[in-house]
Amino acid sequence: MRWMTFEHNGKTRVGYLQADHVQPVAATDLFQIIAGEGTDPAGTPIPLTDVRVLAPLRPPKIICVGQNYMDHCREQNVEPPKKPLLFSKYPTCVIGPDEPIRWPKGLTEQVDFEVELGVIIGRRARLIPEEDALDVVFGYVPVVDVSARDLQFGDGQWMRGKSLDTFCPLGPVVVTRDEVPDPQNIPLKTRVNGITYQDSNTSEMIFSVAHLISYMSQAFTLEPGDLILTGTPHGVGVFRDPPVFLQPGDILEVEVGDFGILRNPVGEMLTP
Amino acid sequence: MRWMTFEHNGKTRVGYLQADHVQPVAATDLFQIIAGEGTDPAGTPIPLTDVRVLAPLRPPKIICVGQNYMDHCREQNVEPPKKPLLFSKYPTCVIGPDEPIRWPKGLTEQVDFEVELGVIIGRRARLIPEEDALDVVFGYVPVVDVSARDLQFGDGQWMRGKSLDTFCPLGPVVVTRDEVPDPQNIPLKTRVNGITYQDSNTSEMIFSVAHLISYMSQAFTLEPGDLILTGTPHGVGVFRDPPVFLQPGDILEVEVGDFGILRNPVGEMLTP
Repeated sequence: MRWMTFEHNGKTRVGYLQADHVQPVAATDLFQIIAGEGTDPAGTPIPLTDVRVLAPLRPPKIICVGQNYMDHCREQNVEPPKKPLLFSKYPTCVIGPDEPIRWPKGLTEQVDFEVELGVIIGRRARLIPEEDALDVVFGYVPVVDVSARDLQFGDGQWMRGKSLDTFCPLGPVVVTRDEVPDPQNIPLKTRVNGITYQDSNTSEMIFSVAHLISYMSQAFTLEPGDLILTGTPHGVGVFRDPPVFLQPGDILEVEVGDFGILRNPVGEMLTP
Repeated sequence: MRWMTFEHNGKTRVGYLQADHVQPVAATDLFQIIAGEGTDPAGTPIPLTDVRVLAPLRPPKIICVGQNYMDHCREQNVEPPKKPLLFSKYPTCVIGPDEPIRWPKGLTEQVDFEVELGVIIGRRARLIPEEDALDVVFGYVPVVDVSARDLQFGDGQWMRGKSLDTFCPLGPVVVTRDEVPDPQNIPLKTRVNGITYQDSNTSEMIFSVAHLISYMSQAFTLEPGDLILTGTPHGVGVFRDPPVFLQPGDILEVEVGDFGILRNPVGEMLTP
């Protein structure tokens, strides 16, 4: 199934896709769906043209993986890592489709895009062996790891440059894992103003989704709704010659498999 | 006032200290208190000996600051930073007083202690000037930034080594800001098995609490209940000669001002 959170007639609702309609259900947020509650239809299907799609949920944790694609390591001229390199984004940076990416004027000059396969955790998981790891997945979702490169590399610690408000576009739908038999064979694409910059496949991942989940669960408990960003392939803006960075007025579009286009404009910079 | 979350007769409650008793209130978690709700007394004061003190809350975000004490920079032989160095811990690592610090056997050999002044945010804050920054504080709380040094330095990104489950002891009380006229003059102490290892004062901070809040709010929205770890002074285990690391059976105690002793045993390592 393909779950979405949306606004209709001023009310936030949850539902699942049926062709060009969304079937609303009893649940009022995606955490209930993850818990298996409120999945019964409530009301008639609504045309997608009548709803505003929101971020599917606000994850308790966002766990990111750096340098997890062979082609992304090649473009940086770095050795593939021997183990997953983890870092974080704060949940306050999540936005939904069509919401503008914005940042305070003067804070950063180097805002970059990274398309990623997002993984939503379905149940509490601690010290999970790799062979059981995919069982704890609720579903998969397109996500952009928007990155202020000057802050990321200037700080050394990546968190701040990765966690600016609006720096985690998420959606439009969460595709349940039964519809994704092999998470290691999903195409990924990024376009800015219609020009393709990233075009790869999750088959280029160094550490698989199952390996990442098992590895993370050695350090900390994964919980329902936690979001894993599994890394980005080659083609990001900062390693291009000349570099490409997002500017107000740009239109960013990413595609992960056939999960739908995640489209976000770049808005005006914030001024005090 | 000095707020605590506690368990009594199998029920989780919130209350405020009155000498050696806690006065329960109507609120069922500290977020309500932060919002100014449920502060009326509910029932009679309970002797502290009859309750189990819990972590005051689970913060939506934990924002940490590295190398923020002059004396801690001196012991590492590093230049004081030009701007705050931010990193994160995950909320899943929070524990309360007396709960054991534990880690999986074989994951780390270098578990270190860092006493810190914790700051709990009281209201939503974005792009806050430094002169208004202390107004968004709800209160202050003792906290330990437990750190697996081998993971922290081995990864380069500090998050994993800082975010192991149980690596953020917090409590026993949150002292509201009206009782803390100057957050830049608070003594801090760490003892392991009765031996003092850290003994300093928040006057050694390089960036003040007000500066940190303003700085963070340029990057992301601070929300009620968010927890800021303001950095640790000198005396941590890893820079000692010989180094000192926590071992099962150790008793860790930290003190921040007169906010009460935060005491945690180190438990047995986890085995699969």
